[in-house]
Amino acid sequence: MYRTHTCGELRLEHKGQTVTLAGWVQKARKMGAMTFIDLRDRYGITQLRADESCGEEVARAAAGLGREFVIQASGVVEERQSKNPKIATGDIEIRLTDLKVLNAAQTPPFTIEDESDGGEELRAKYRYLDLRRNPLKNALMLRHRMAHEVRNYLDSKGFLEIETPFLIKSTPEGARDFVVPSRMNPGEFYALPQSPQTFKQLLMVAGYDRYFQIVRCFRDEDLRADRQPEFTQIDCEMSFVEQEDVLNLFEGMMVNLFKKVIGVDIKSPIPRMSWYDAMDNYGSDKPDIRFGMKIHEITSAVQGKGFSVFDSVEYVGAITVPGAAEYTRKQLDALTDWVKRPQVGAKGLVYIKLGSDGIKSSVDKFYTPEELGKVAELAEANTGDLVLILCGAKRKAQTMLGVLRIEMGNRLGYRDPHVYAPLWVVDFPLLEWDDETQRFYAMHHPFTAPKPEHLKLFYSDKKEDLEKVCANAYDFVLNGTELGGGSIRIHEADVQQRMFEVLGISKEDADYKFGFIINAFKFGAPPHGGLAFGFDRVCALFGGQETIRDYIAFPKNNVGRDVMLDAPSRIDDVQMDELFLKSTAQTKK
Amino acid sequence: MYRTHTCGELRLEHKGQTVTLAGWVQKARKMGAMTFIDLRDRYGITQLRADESCGEEVARAAAGLGREFVIQASGVVEERQSKNPKIATGDIEIRLTDLKVLNAAQTPPFTIEDESDGGEELRAKYRYLDLRRNPLKNALMLRHRMAHEVRNYLDSKGFLEIETPFLIKSTPEGARDFVVPSRMNPGEFYALPQSPQTFKQLLMVAGYDRYFQIVRCFRDEDLRADRQPEFTQIDCEMSFVEQEDVLNLFEGMMVNLFKKVIGVDIKSPIPRMSWYDAMDNYGSDKPDIRFGMKIHEITSAVQGKGFSVFDSVEYVGAITVPGAAEYTRKQLDALTDWVKRPQVGAKGLVYIKLGSDGIKSSVDKFYTPEELGKVAELAEANTGDLVLILCGAKRKAQTMLGVLRIEMGNRLGYRDPHVYAPLWVVDFPLLEWDDETQRFYAMHHPFTAPKPEHLKLFYSDKKEDLEKVCANAYDFVLNGTELGGGSIRIHEADVQQRMFEVLGISKEDADYKFGFIINAFKFGAPPHGGLAFGFDRVCALFGGQETIRDYIAFPKNNVGRDVMLDAPSRIDDVQMDELFLKSTAQTKK
Repeated sequence: MYRTHTCGELRLEHKGQTVTLAGWVQKARKMGAMTFIDLRDRYGITQLRADESCGEEVARAAAGLGREFVIQASGVVEERQSKNPKIATGDIEIRLTDLKVLNAAQTPPFTIEDESDGGEELRAKYRYLDLRRNPLKNALMLRHRMAHEVRNYLDSKGFLEIETPFLIKSTPEGARDFVVPSRMNPGEFYALPQSPQTFKQLLMVAGYDRYFQIVRCFRDEDLRADRQPEFTQIDCEMSFVEQEDVLNLFEGMMVNLFKKVIGVDIKSPIPRMSWYDAMDNYGSDKPDIRFGMKIHEITSAVQGKGFSVFDSVEYVGAITVPGAAEYTRKQLDALTDWVKRPQVGAKGLVYIKLGSDGIKSSVDKFYTPEELGKVAELAEANTGDLVLILCGAKRKAQTMLGVLRIEMGNRLGYRDPHVYAPLWVVDFPLLEWDDETQRFYAMHHPFTAPKPEHLKLFYSDKKEDLEKVCANAYDFVLNGTELGGGSIRIHEADVQQRMFEVLGISKEDADYKFGFIINAFKFGAPPHGGLAFGFDRVCALFGGQETIRDYIAFPKNNVGRDVMLDAPSRIDDVQMDELFLKSTAQTKK
Repeated sequence: MYRTHTCGELRLEHKGQTVTLAGWVQKARKMGAMTFIDLRDRYGITQLRADESCGEEVARAAAGLGREFVIQASGVVEERQSKNPKIATGDIEIRLTDLKVLNAAQTPPFTIEDESDGGEELRAKYRYLDLRRNPLKNALMLRHRMAHEVRNYLDSKGFLEIETPFLIKSTPEGARDFVVPSRMNPGEFYALPQSPQTFKQLLMVAGYDRYFQIVRCFRDEDLRADRQPEFTQIDCEMSFVEQEDVLNLFEGMMVNLFKKVIGVDIKSPIPRMSWYDAMDNYGSDKPDIRFGMKIHEITSAVQGKGFSVFDSVEYVGAITVPGAAEYTRKQLDALTDWVKRPQVGAKGLVYIKLGSDGIKSSVDKFYTPEELGKVAELAEANTGDLVLILCGAKRKAQTMLGVLRIEMGNRLGYRDPHVYAPLWVVDFPLLEWDDETQRFYAMHHPFTAPKPEHLKLFYSDKKEDLEKVCANAYDFVLNGTELGGGSIRIHEADVQQRMFEVLGISKEDADYKFGFIINAFKFGAPPHGGLAFGFDRVCALFGGQETIRDYIAFPKNNVGRDVMLDAPSRIDDVQMDELFLKSTAQTKK
């Protein structure tokens, strides 16, 4: 062993002991005849001191050190003259008796500090240096602790972690699969799993009634910001359970994680909200309930007064921004521009200011002060508040109001990342109609069961009946982000067949793609359900961050490249031939 | 919840309680007016009883049950008339008050019993039914327990589990990579990792001094028996350590696993053996030390007596088979045929029988009884034993003797799978010369460091010097199977460069394939080392099995197919176009 202690471990109580440390030179500064070295490892920083008493050899070695050199240092623990209360080892320093350079280092291309001077691209290329910085180190340590506590909790509840395969069958439903050409089966491909969904259901058929896995998943999507082509899921499934059982168990897991990993007490039961209430009140299926500012429908209060914009739409809704009546014309114009951006997509923004000097609105022409007062009352606004109004088709307008609500929440500082407000969203619609393709899509996935009481509707031929079918589906939402979701599954072959029918998947297609699971359901499938959490995002939110990239040791960039490895890359012709492949990329470029 | 208890849980102390169970019908048998049902779940089997007291509805339901039906059964716990000491719930049965069929089942294509009547192919196709059988269930439960204890142990030692990427860069060195075409980067491919070797070394450079991961790895090899294209590794790496530190830590982990998971006490320290001793004495770099029967060199004792077969070879060696002097001529002929098979590759077999009536040998013509006695003495043979002799080039002959030794160990019942004899094999040669390609290959991999005391030899230009270079490399061997291995790594850029040079990898090639890691070593790489265990095989051996397939939930068959999924499979033209690929499989077929 190259060391007797780590760099985070020594205290005054070790005074007088001879120790050996090893690590990286964070900083070396010469002060007259003395050299002070901050030695860093994963556990902390310890100050080393080389002075005249150390002998010439040590002094020379100390003088030659550069940033990030790897050294082994022996010496005696002494009390510091000037203590550093900011670090755990700040009371002591090591007076050196021996100093060995284990490996010299080139000067790193950016500073290894909490706030680095390196740009994102540069830090990505030298990820192994970026990973030396505290924020990333703390992120990966949090991630380890999270995974470990998840496993401990689920093990204590009788769950078995069972590994499912990565080389599976391509079933192009939903997102695109990454595929893997098979050399041994010419012309054929494996797919990488988008999730172990079918496998965990097969494990339920096989009788493993409590399954989980922390597992990598793959989706070949056009990357949106903060999406990764490979990501990690906490994947779970249980048999002989109803929705209530699943929610209770995983609520327990999350409460336990909050407590054990970041010391936060979450009140149980975690609130539950139906999908319909979430949409109506928050304009989102993943509401941030750290703050109110709910959406209020004001359609009937504003229609029929001659304002054609409102008269021509299905829905008018409002949110009240507390204390924002002072917003200037300029600010309101900017806000109007903001909601008109394609990311929000509103046609315009109507406001009512409840100033101390009376009510003012951008639609004064059409409404009397009393009528505006009525609207403000519906929007639960008081003097000093600002009411913001959007309109359109109901769900679309609500969604826009939801986005506006989040923006105003940010501006008002309502969204402290270290306040945690979890929520279950329940009672999702089973199906979503898509106007463009004129067909239904599964809101979660094609294995989600309709609520038993909606089974009759599910077998109806009418679109409006099918739209009403609810699922025993649920999402775990934290601070406006969906961290996980799941459902009670279909366990009867005929209901599954009906689902494929409703989704417009032909019997042939269903048999080809899902034959094995349809088949499996014929041999005694138990009632079952489960859920999956997006582990990268769970870690990021627990760490108080919104982006996941720091919580992944070696992430890809926005076009799916690993710039450190320079991957993906060309492969040689021999490999292509062995795989029976030809690239058409040249001609297409 | 569909149940109050599991099927493995009820005892006499529950007598009189009303309970609800759910599970699969293992068996239903009608005896007069009564029906007995064995209800099975993951936890055990409980007997249900339907009799006249249960009412007509329950009786009818019970009569309609078939094998593997999924049912929910309520009733009262009663003491059994005739107890079954073979099962934990054997003292009680449930007198039914309610019986609900949750899902009917077709008759399974094979019996769900410890010994099934189904063939391998059929059971693979219906893997979800095969997984219901006890041997597979126990295998997967053991695997879960193993993984959990590995994680607990390493966490307690300060290791961080850090996930490394699956979509990486293809570096065709060693085995073939599976590759993944990139849609977003036309003409380019990711590779699936053969192991996280380079990533764990980068993590060491990044300062994460104790890393581990239980991680899937991929190798596109022509499958040998009991190899899988995807397999799982316990992958570990440490910084600031020497070989001794690594061995001690993972010896502790294995001893802990033996104790915690299967209750076996392993004496520590686990024996260590140099690679040279292993080859000389056991003809294998993974000796089974559950039994002796060591190899003895007898070259000088048999050469120069006119037997040209021995005179013309480099090496003659012998093993002594205790008590086998009784082997008949027929048995010895069969054994001779056995060693002549291409899997062993011997040209012939010489024997000496030490019968109670004197010494007999197949080479009586060339040797006097005294000379043969001398050989028997060298081979540590006593009266009643059989000495078996092979010859050839030294390592090749030793290897053949090693194979013969294992065979004789099997025949003599020396290889009880529930006796555990672990061993560290150490001091491996760094390089292996390949006559065919006339170059050196890394015995472990190109990141293994030469022993410091052999550094000078390592920089020599002479083949015979390079052959002598030893590595601080080590394998963990159990009962004749290599379960894991590792080494102290190169941490200096110039030594790594020299390694690529010795392996005939050009600077350009090395830069292209390993540039990122060569580069990383320039920025302060600590001394480090680690190892990896083949987790599938560790589980199988702990379970007392030699084949890994039962310890993997959804394995592939011998040509890399998942016969349940029917994967790999063709993908559609749209997918091929999106990936800029054309298949040449048609024309090549």
